[in-house]
Amino acid sequence: MDFRTEHISSWLLYMFDATAQEWLKCCNDDVLRAEIRTHCQQLVKSAYTHGDRSALEQVHKALALIYTKDFSSAQIGTIECEMQPILRDISAIFEKSMIDHEIKQFTHGWLEDVPKDGQLYVKWLKNIISKHSSSVHPLYNDFLGLHAQSHHLAYYLAQETNLDPRFDDILAFLQVGLPVEPKLELAQNYFDEMGNGNPAEVHSHMFKTALQQIGVDDQFLQDNMLLDAKISGNISAALALSRRHYFKAVGYFGVTEYLAPRRFKHVVNAWRRNGLPESGITYHELHIGIDAVHAKGWFNNVIIPAVENNIDVGREIAIGAMIRLNSSERYLNSLLQHFENQYTAIDNA
Amino acid sequence: MDFRTEHISSWLLYMFDATAQEWLKCCNDDVLRAEIRTHCQQLVKSAYTHGDRSALEQVHKALALIYTKDFSSAQIGTIECEMQPILRDISAIFEKSMIDHEIKQFTHGWLEDVPKDGQLYVKWLKNIISKHSSSVHPLYNDFLGLHAQSHHLAYYLAQETNLDPRFDDILAFLQVGLPVEPKLELAQNYFDEMGNGNPAEVHSHMFKTALQQIGVDDQFLQDNMLLDAKISGNISAALALSRRHYFKAVGYFGVTEYLAPRRFKHVVNAWRRNGLPESGITYHELHIGIDAVHAKGWFNNVIIPAVENNIDVGREIAIGAMIRLNSSERYLNSLLQHFENQYTAIDNA
Repeated sequence: MDFRTEHISSWLLYMFDATAQEWLKCCNDDVLRAEIRTHCQQLVKSAYTHGDRSALEQVHKALALIYTKDFSSAQIGTIECEMQPILRDISAIFEKSMIDHEIKQFTHGWLEDVPKDGQLYVKWLKNIISKHSSSVHPLYNDFLGLHAQSHHLAYYLAQETNLDPRFDDILAFLQVGLPVEPKLELAQNYFDEMGNGNPAEVHSHMFKTALQQIGVDDQFLQDNMLLDAKISGNISAALALSRRHYFKAVGYFGVTEYLAPRRFKHVVNAWRRNGLPESGITYHELHIGIDAVHAKGWFNNVIIPAVENNIDVGREIAIGAMIRLNSSERYLNSLLQHFENQYTAIDNA
Repeated sequence: MDFRTEHISSWLLYMFDATAQEWLKCCNDDVLRAEIRTHCQQLVKSAYTHGDRSALEQVHKALALIYTKDFSSAQIGTIECEMQPILRDISAIFEKSMIDHEIKQFTHGWLEDVPKDGQLYVKWLKNIISKHSSSVHPLYNDFLGLHAQSHHLAYYLAQETNLDPRFDDILAFLQVGLPVEPKLELAQNYFDEMGNGNPAEVHSHMFKTALQQIGVDDQFLQDNMLLDAKISGNISAALALSRRHYFKAVGYFGVTEYLAPRRFKHVVNAWRRNGLPESGITYHELHIGIDAVHAKGWFNNVIIPAVENNIDVGREIAIGAMIRLNSSERYLNSLLQHFENQYTAIDNA
């Protein structure tokens, strides 16, 4: 298997089955290491400079594989394999292009009047979120809320696996090394995700129940993830995994907490309208209430203390929030387009 | 600054102040990358094959700097610096030698009769822990329990900063990607560390209070860390930070939870014997009770389910436990030796 002739994602899958000795040989092979980096740099150039969609797909397929490893615990067969030097070389190159690409899409000048005062900052940021076209999106407010059938909901929930099932781990990463006040806010949010110690109320478990009840299994996930859903999941993972991205992550995930209640009520409506089992919608119904509390705590106890320490932090948090708003919108547009294409196909049949 | 002529730790400190552009240049410099790896490989050879103590000090000074970064949140001045490719190249080489060195010291054959049954396994492991000379160590049972003065306690607590202040983050890392049962056990342990949401009862805050009341500040820590305390802290960090080390970490930190109550009662005695302020010993007193509960939960809800899935997992957990017992003993021996040398110096004065 050679990454120069095969896809880099195929090479990664091959290497994930390699021995510790093979990984060590790879890590110590100066020529190979340089070639991997060159290959990755060429790939992001094709993807982001030349707009090659298959290169973009490769970048995000590979990143998703790496991040899935980062969010997984040990597997006994591979515990001797030191993969980090290679994986971080690849992810550093892909990640930089992915985030730079998001930042390039910003409107000029929107960060010029970032308020210095914490309370004013939060008001300013909430206004940006609410005015963004991702905030009240027809995928939720029209399609899911009023029209979606059970198979649409299944497809939608499959896309959402790019974030929801790992939200507890995202919070665990974000809280590393923080001062007591924001750390406690994230700790409480994390412990809520963990059902406050009650196994039946662990959120990732509830989300899994929804997937099971609507017939989404691993094969369905493998076959049906939209590229924009993968990109959204990769941005979420990147911002959570690297400590240096903490401020961007605070803005990014602050938006997810803030928008969840107004989005999830349409999911609940769709679920009930389709007469699906009540126990499968607990996760979304719970988050309508709890995420309003989490968003408030996030703004008051995580964002305000960070911003009041430094205006540059305020800018970084806003950048993270805007990355979420834009990437979420592109993903929701793609998803709506996907559903509309299905209708067109049926009409034309 | 050149790592070929200066210490690698000095080069890292220099690079931690470098610009994002300098880091990017470093990451993309194939020759430099190869030279860094070669340099690190020579250093571990000097340290571990030739027994060069100053090389060993360099390895652990550099590792401690890298791990401190890994346990720190973002600093606004360095958020654009992508350090991971370089840091993981260095830490992979140092870490492998550090862990291999621990494993080389094991007695032949001790892993031959690892029980397959979970309950029997725990009994077997507890017996190994209790019979190890690190379990009832004279540093605790004699010196701290009966003789230590306030300045000895200060020196002891300074060494202990290699683990205690980051135990919440260690648990946060360990719980990533776990099944619900062990994840909940670690989540509950983590939330206890976070004072169950009460700022005044956050354990890292309590530990800080103890340090402040006994006069240990950052300068004292910089000037007084024993090499064996640094090594112990580096092993703890390595096992917590890499998902692949999870099973070893489960054994390693299971020992710390299991031994804390019998060790900390001597610290409490020393504190009170010296008439130090009562509020400074809350952390240690609390852990005498709570770590007995945590150890029980750790053995029942983390170790047993893992072992019953796979006998190889049982071996890995035992390896982690033995690494903790041996490295803890070496650290306690060094610390006791340090105190005894002080007495000899006074006697000879």
